[in-house]
Amino acid sequence: MIKAHGYAVHDAHSPLVPFEFERREPGAHDVQIEILYCGICHSDLHQIHNDWSNSIYPMVPGHEIVGRVVKVGAHVGKLKVGDLAGVGCMVDSCRQCPACQEDLEQYCAEGATLTYNDHERGNDKLTFGGYSDLIVVEERFVVKIPNSLDLKAVAPLLCAGITTYSPLRHWNVGPGQKVGVIGLGGLGHMGIKFAKALGAHVVMITTSPEKGKDASRLGADEILLSRDADAMAAHASSFDFLLDTIPVPHDLNPYVALLKRDRTLAIVGVLTELSPPLNGFSLIGGRKNVSGSAIGGMAETQEMIDFCAEHGIVSDVEMVTIQNVNSAYERLQKNDVKYRFVIDMASLRAQAA
Amino acid sequence: MIKAHGYAVHDAHSPLVPFEFERREPGAHDVQIEILYCGICHSDLHQIHNDWSNSIYPMVPGHEIVGRVVKVGAHVGKLKVGDLAGVGCMVDSCRQCPACQEDLEQYCAEGATLTYNDHERGNDKLTFGGYSDLIVVEERFVVKIPNSLDLKAVAPLLCAGITTYSPLRHWNVGPGQKVGVIGLGGLGHMGIKFAKALGAHVVMITTSPEKGKDASRLGADEILLSRDADAMAAHASSFDFLLDTIPVPHDLNPYVALLKRDRTLAIVGVLTELSPPLNGFSLIGGRKNVSGSAIGGMAETQEMIDFCAEHGIVSDVEMVTIQNVNSAYERLQKNDVKYRFVIDMASLRAQAA
Repeated sequence: MIKAHGYAVHDAHSPLVPFEFERREPGAHDVQIEILYCGICHSDLHQIHNDWSNSIYPMVPGHEIVGRVVKVGAHVGKLKVGDLAGVGCMVDSCRQCPACQEDLEQYCAEGATLTYNDHERGNDKLTFGGYSDLIVVEERFVVKIPNSLDLKAVAPLLCAGITTYSPLRHWNVGPGQKVGVIGLGGLGHMGIKFAKALGAHVVMITTSPEKGKDASRLGADEILLSRDADAMAAHASSFDFLLDTIPVPHDLNPYVALLKRDRTLAIVGVLTELSPPLNGFSLIGGRKNVSGSAIGGMAETQEMIDFCAEHGIVSDVEMVTIQNVNSAYERLQKNDVKYRFVIDMASLRAQAA
Repeated sequence: MIKAHGYAVHDAHSPLVPFEFERREPGAHDVQIEILYCGICHSDLHQIHNDWSNSIYPMVPGHEIVGRVVKVGAHVGKLKVGDLAGVGCMVDSCRQCPACQEDLEQYCAEGATLTYNDHERGNDKLTFGGYSDLIVVEERFVVKIPNSLDLKAVAPLLCAGITTYSPLRHWNVGPGQKVGVIGLGGLGHMGIKFAKALGAHVVMITTSPEKGKDASRLGADEILLSRDADAMAAHASSFDFLLDTIPVPHDLNPYVALLKRDRTLAIVGVLTELSPPLNGFSLIGGRKNVSGSAIGGMAETQEMIDFCAEHGIVSDVEMVTIQNVNSAYERLQKNDVKYRFVIDMASLRAQAA
C-alpha cells in the first residue's frame, strides 16, 4: 500500500480536515498520478453535506483531477512516466454491459465506480478523490493531457467540461444552429465555450444582466434575460438545442417554449425534482423533448481534451490552497466564483512536508 | 348557407341540447359530408366543461367524424360524391409555415383551426364539430375511408387512432422492439393494436389486473401491473419506447425507469401539469427523453387509415344515440366504456325528421 495525504470530511456537518489514508500499489493496468491540481465541483458540496442521502464517511472529495504520471503498471500502453494525465468522475465500471461496450461507461448497467464516495469493485474499500497528493487508477479511466494547455485550468474539464461537451456532441450541435446555454456557472461557462467552438450561434440565457456581460467575453453571441417576458416571447420556438445547467429545481416550461418543434432541452445540473412541474402541453404542442445527460464516456473525455487542445479551450479558474477549501465552499454556496475553484496541491505538499 | 342540426352546450354547466346552426356552402376546394357517426373523445368532456379555460359557447363538440360525401367543390380532386370520408381534430391551418409545408399541420406556427371550439380563418365564425348532421371542410383536411372497414368503428381513428399511430411511427416502433403502452382507454387500446401491427413486442402497463386481461385480447403480449414494484423492477431499463396515454397528471418517474438508455417516453394524454414532478436523475441517469406528440398531420392521418384497412384495424366501440350523449358523458367520466363511445347520427336525423 502507498501512504497518501489529503483532506476529508468525517460527517455531514464538519469542515474538511487533514487526513491520511492508503492507496493501492499500481497493478499491471494501473497508473499512479501525482496530483497537481483538483477542481471543486458543485457536487462536492452536495456530497459532503449528504444532500443526496448517499454519502459515505470519511470522504475525500474531488473528481476534477490532473497531475503527472509517476508510475505505470507493466501492461499500461497509452501513458508513460512523466505524462500529464487526468481523472474525472469515474475510476471503474463493469466493462461488460452494452453501455461499457459502447464506451459509455457513465451509463454502466451495474453503475460506474465513482472516484470518491463509492466502493472499489470486488471489495469494500472506499474510493477517495482528488483532494489528495496522489491517486492510482486503471488506465482506461485516465486521459492523457497535452502539454499545450494551462494545466490548472484543465482540471475542471474532467467534470464540468465533459458534462457540457457530451450533450452538445450527442445532439449534434454545429454551424447554422441557434443554441441556448441556460445558467452561467461552472457548467454554463464551459457550455458557451464548447457551443461556440462547435460553430453554433450561442445564446446565453440567464436571470442576471451582469452575467450576460461576462457571457459575451466567454463567446456568447447573444444574451437572453429569462425574466424579460417580451424577450423570451421574441425567441419562442427558435432554438435548435438548449443546454440547461441550472443546478437547482426550476420551471422548465418557459425554456421548452423556446425550442423549435422536435428539438431537445437537455438538463445536466439538476439531480432532484424538476419542480414546478412540466406541463404536458409544453411538450405535446411541438413534439419537444426534455432529456438529461451525465458526464461522458472515457473515449469521449479524451476526445474533449483533444478538442480543447485544438481550440485552446480551458476553464476560467480561481486558485485556492487546500487550507482554504472550507472558505471556498462558503463562496461556492453563494455562486461567488468565476467559474471554478481549483485547489493547488502544492499547498498540501508544503503542509505534509 | 346550409341549415344544420346538432347538439350543443351553451355554458360549462348545462347538458347538451338540440341546436340549429348554419354551415357555409361548399367552395371550390370544399367537401360537404353527411355525418353518419361521430366518436366521443375524452377531450370533448374537458371542452364542454371549460377545463382548459378556453371554451367558446355555444359549442357543438365532436372531432371523430365519418360520413358520406354528398357534394364537392369544382376543384376537389381526391374525393367524389358517394365516397366515405373522415374529419379529425383540424379543419384548416396556415399552409405556409414550415410545419404545414412538412405536412405537420397539427404543429402549424399560427395554430391549426380546430374542428370545434375555434374560429374559421379570416373571419369570426365559430367552428362547430361532429355532433351534427353535416359538415363542410376543405379537401386537405378530409381523409378518404375505404369501404372495407366497419365505418362506425372508424370514427375514433380520426383522433384516438392518429394520436397513437403518429408517435409510434415517429419513434420508429417496429419488429425486435419492446414497447409499452401505459393506460388502457380510448387511446391506449388503439396504441396496443398499432404497436402490435407494427411488429413490436407489446406490454400493456396498467394499474388494474382486469384491464390486463382485456389487453391480451387487444393484442398485448405481456401485462405489467404498475403497482407491482417487483414486476416494475424486473422490467427496469428494458423498453425501447413508451406511449403514455394516461389522461390525468401522474408520476412519470417509475415509467421513465423502464426505458433503456437513450429511449423515449411520449405523452399523448396529459395537457396539464406532469405532477408529481419528474426527477432530473431519472433522465440524466440514462440520457432518457420525455416527449409529447399531438394527433398527426393530414397525410399521416390518411396513411393511418390505409394502414388500418391493410391490417383490419378499427376501434372497439359502444354505440349511443345523440339523445343519450349526456349519460354517455357520465359513464365516460368514470372510464366506463370499452373503449370509445360513438354516436349514431341516424338518431339525430330521426329526431329532426
